[in-house]
Amino acid sequence: MQAATGNESFSAIEWRDDALYLLDQRRLPAEETWLRLETAGAVADAIRDMVVRGAPAIGITAAYGVVLAWRESRAAGEEAAGVLADRLEVLAAARPTAVNLAWALGRMRTALRATDASEAALLEEARQIHAEDIAMNHRMAMLGSALLPDGANVVTHCNTGTLATGGYGTALGVIRQGWADGRIRRIYAGETRPWLQGSRLTSWELARDGIPVTLLADSAQMQLFRRERPDWVIVGADRIAANGDVANKIGTYSLAVAARHHGAKFMVVAPTTTVDLGVPEGAAIPIEEREGDEVLAAAGMDSRTEGVSVSNPVFDVTPADLIDAIVTERGVARPPTRETMAAMMARSPAVAPT
Amino acid sequence: MQAATGNESFSAIEWRDDALYLLDQRRLPAEETWLRLETAGAVADAIRDMVVRGAPAIGITAAYGVVLAWRESRAAGEEAAGVLADRLEVLAAARPTAVNLAWALGRMRTALRATDASEAALLEEARQIHAEDIAMNHRMAMLGSALLPDGANVVTHCNTGTLATGGYGTALGVIRQGWADGRIRRIYAGETRPWLQGSRLTSWELARDGIPVTLLADSAQMQLFRRERPDWVIVGADRIAANGDVANKIGTYSLAVAARHHGAKFMVVAPTTTVDLGVPEGAAIPIEEREGDEVLAAAGMDSRTEGVSVSNPVFDVTPADLIDAIVTERGVARPPTRETMAAMMARSPAVAPT
Repeated sequence: MQAATGNESFSAIEWRDDALYLLDQRRLPAEETWLRLETAGAVADAIRDMVVRGAPAIGITAAYGVVLAWRESRAAGEEAAGVLADRLEVLAAARPTAVNLAWALGRMRTALRATDASEAALLEEARQIHAEDIAMNHRMAMLGSALLPDGANVVTHCNTGTLATGGYGTALGVIRQGWADGRIRRIYAGETRPWLQGSRLTSWELARDGIPVTLLADSAQMQLFRRERPDWVIVGADRIAANGDVANKIGTYSLAVAARHHGAKFMVVAPTTTVDLGVPEGAAIPIEEREGDEVLAAAGMDSRTEGVSVSNPVFDVTPADLIDAIVTERGVARPPTRETMAAMMARSPAVAPT
Repeated sequence: MQAATGNESFSAIEWRDDALYLLDQRRLPAEETWLRLETAGAVADAIRDMVVRGAPAIGITAAYGVVLAWRESRAAGEEAAGVLADRLEVLAAARPTAVNLAWALGRMRTALRATDASEAALLEEARQIHAEDIAMNHRMAMLGSALLPDGANVVTHCNTGTLATGGYGTALGVIRQGWADGRIRRIYAGETRPWLQGSRLTSWELARDGIPVTLLADSAQMQLFRRERPDWVIVGADRIAANGDVANKIGTYSLAVAARHHGAKFMVVAPTTTVDLGVPEGAAIPIEEREGDEVLAAAGMDSRTEGVSVSNPVFDVTPADLIDAIVTERGVARPPTRETMAAMMARSPAVAPT
């Protein structure tokens, strides 16, 4: 087995010089611009405005945001508690669908309650969350790659790589590992309208790693299944319900129906921080609806165009019965059911860096 | 029954002042610019560059192009025959998938062979092709609307309206008639990447007619079937094989799979000029692959981006067994099979203007 190559040591989220730096993903691939953030409010804005996106990356970013919230609260004297509570609320409300955000804030709240809470201790906790995410990605990459046949053609969607996580990636981590293991022939990536994560981010990451990628319009993916007979669809997740239903980038459900209709397999790769056992099934997951202008802009239109309404849900829900395997760092639920999910979640964490 | 309203008297193709005028569809909806064309070569360029698109509109445009080809040949003295043959070849090669182009050229060739061929006679033939197309659209609109239940929610794709035809539209003609008949509640239109016919053209046409339309990313359509349970998908066609397989805008096949998976019905609306009995099945239809830059441009990328290849098929093939009804001006093949298609094509033309 070859060593995994590529973007391993790269992260789009960095803490340095006493502040949080984010690679501005809105400007990729044309420009690699880093933004310096010094307040929790700025971090929340960056999450909402998609400077950073991807469920695990949102969680990690919010964790660092709590360090800034703490610092702001310390500067507020008597108002410290109120400022801290306010900033945590602002961070929690930045985006609704990815449960990793709530998970990371929950873990940071525990650190805040410690008697020796300090900026240094909180920063250490955020760095730990970040490092664990990378370790989980490598563990999932091994588990997912092992499911692939030799010479696999793989379809993916959105961006689930280094940019969407602490580093390496979830679905894209499996793809990196599968490529390193010699199992993957080619990746097909949908451009992922309206935000174009596929064309702007995934092709940028894969091209950097020298993994062959063919980009296509999302509407061309169904025909691809007829013509190229891909073996697996591999995607990430923004929230996974207790029964194995998966909320992920809009278009994921279409790929799941495509896979089932054409006899391909469908794999979801996400750390257990994406699993929300408090949500019994997909219908209960809040689905973010963003501004219609995100869709209209490509056509030189905006929301002032009379007589045209836009529906812009940016996630959809794939029912568990269309999913062949959910890969987490604790193992594989195959197929995902309430029982296999519960059994997987009950296993002890296995996140030693590979 | 209300009278059909809206764009009836409007056409994006006009012959006036001894030349062909085309509404430049590349600039809609921002600008309504008309181009004046005086040579067959300019007409072929306009078809290839998508100043005009839509299978019936391409055929009509090419017919007028033959008038210009004749004029050019008359000006060429002894070289007349060679010039004419060359111009007809250039027109025929403009785009590969829509069979209406070859059909219209065939009909104009017959007029060219008449002993009394003249520019006036050829222009009369082109105008006749244009008028017949509008009449066929009205006939199909009645036949298709009659298939709809009351309060229907309808999904459509690409643009099949006035802009795509001689006037009124194929699938959009059925939608206009269904709305006039009080049967349609709402239209859902995919934006239709990469060229955005849905957002730029269909929403422009429907908004002009006051028909409620919700636009969405193509990748959001599958989830729409789960959430809104639309009754019918209604689309046009660029070529229909003898067995009822349909080549149409990329993304059509995805809607057909979506409809079947969710229990919705799927209707194709196209005049018999779109049917190619010389092609036994969909696999034999040539599918145009356009430049990858059409996909990459939205992401601020182009074909110089290293390591990324693009697949940009602009049509796909929907197998007949996913289609509930093919509506032509000669009747309805329901469901389409080799037998029902042959029976429909054998019927005498019924194209009296409604």
